[in-house]
Amino acid sequence: MRKKTIAIDMDGVLADIDAQLIDHYNKAHGTTLSKESIKGLTSDVAFKERDFIHKLLHSENFFRTLPVMPDAVESLLELDKDFEIFIVSAATEFPISLSEKMAWLAEHFPFIKWDNIILCGSKRIINTDYMIDDHCKNLDYCMGKPIMFTAFHNVNQNHHIRVNNWKEAVALLKETL
Amino acid sequence: MRKKTIAIDMDGVLADIDAQLIDHYNKAHGTTLSKESIKGLTSDVAFKERDFIHKLLHSENFFRTLPVMPDAVESLLELDKDFEIFIVSAATEFPISLSEKMAWLAEHFPFIKWDNIILCGSKRIINTDYMIDDHCKNLDYCMGKPIMFTAFHNVNQNHHIRVNNWKEAVALLKETL
Repeated sequence: MRKKTIAIDMDGVLADIDAQLIDHYNKAHGTTLSKESIKGLTSDVAFKERDFIHKLLHSENFFRTLPVMPDAVESLLELDKDFEIFIVSAATEFPISLSEKMAWLAEHFPFIKWDNIILCGSKRIINTDYMIDDHCKNLDYCMGKPIMFTAFHNVNQNHHIRVNNWKEAVALLKETL
Repeated sequence: MRKKTIAIDMDGVLADIDAQLIDHYNKAHGTTLSKESIKGLTSDVAFKERDFIHKLLHSENFFRTLPVMPDAVESLLELDKDFEIFIVSAATEFPISLSEKMAWLAEHFPFIKWDNIILCGSKRIINTDYMIDDHCKNLDYCMGKPIMFTAFHNVNQNHHIRVNNWKEAVALLKETL
């Protein structure tokens, strides 16, 4: 029997983009934002200087140096036994990020092969059994079962099953076997 | 009613990779290969110097300078009226190609937005109504209706509907409306 498939998002799920955004933003603006202090805000409200964020997302080395989300490596190794994992990242908006994301995955998740990496825009035509993501714009339209991964900007959106971290994600997915 | 979706391959369908391979190969080896002379052969047999091909596919500017397939631009503009077009290219095997493919599309197909571009490995989880591709490895496993675009290496594979050029592809797809 074929393994069930999971589409796993990168930014906000495997890669802690919010930690990196907060860090760069605080350093540039002398602010003291934290994940806790911006909880429940949209990104636009949390980071008021939108030009700064836009430049950051289009700058070299931003995506290449993102910290790995806690427990993500061990969790994917565990899930890899029972599921077929696809990494599905909305990356084509940021052309510089494309090869950086490949290099980042090769460094931190070398067991994920190129066949199973998808750098896309919209995720509407991705058809996997499950999708783990932190954005409703992806989860609301995905063809499989959506799983929301908690981030500061999604804590008030409660129409999808939620996991708060990778340990919860693994536990939930293993229940489905 | 939502528009029907088409996944359109790049290499061998929008971009004439075979013309570029033949050209580089002949110049390097003093051979006189042509699309006609290698018709029906696999790529491995047609281009015996595999190391040369491997280096070419991993070299800078190879994908960026591919010629556009005849009638491809006009055909996509025409199809864009009635279908939602997704460009789906197996590109993650060649990391250098990723940003080059984005730049190539922006130059030749500026009406295709980043949301609708997918750079992937396997196309097994792509779910569109139609898929136009030159490789059975993609068409045999796609979720929608497969349409084979003729290339030297696929002329003996006849288990999919075939189009020989973009004019035939547009005619076939417009019949389905």
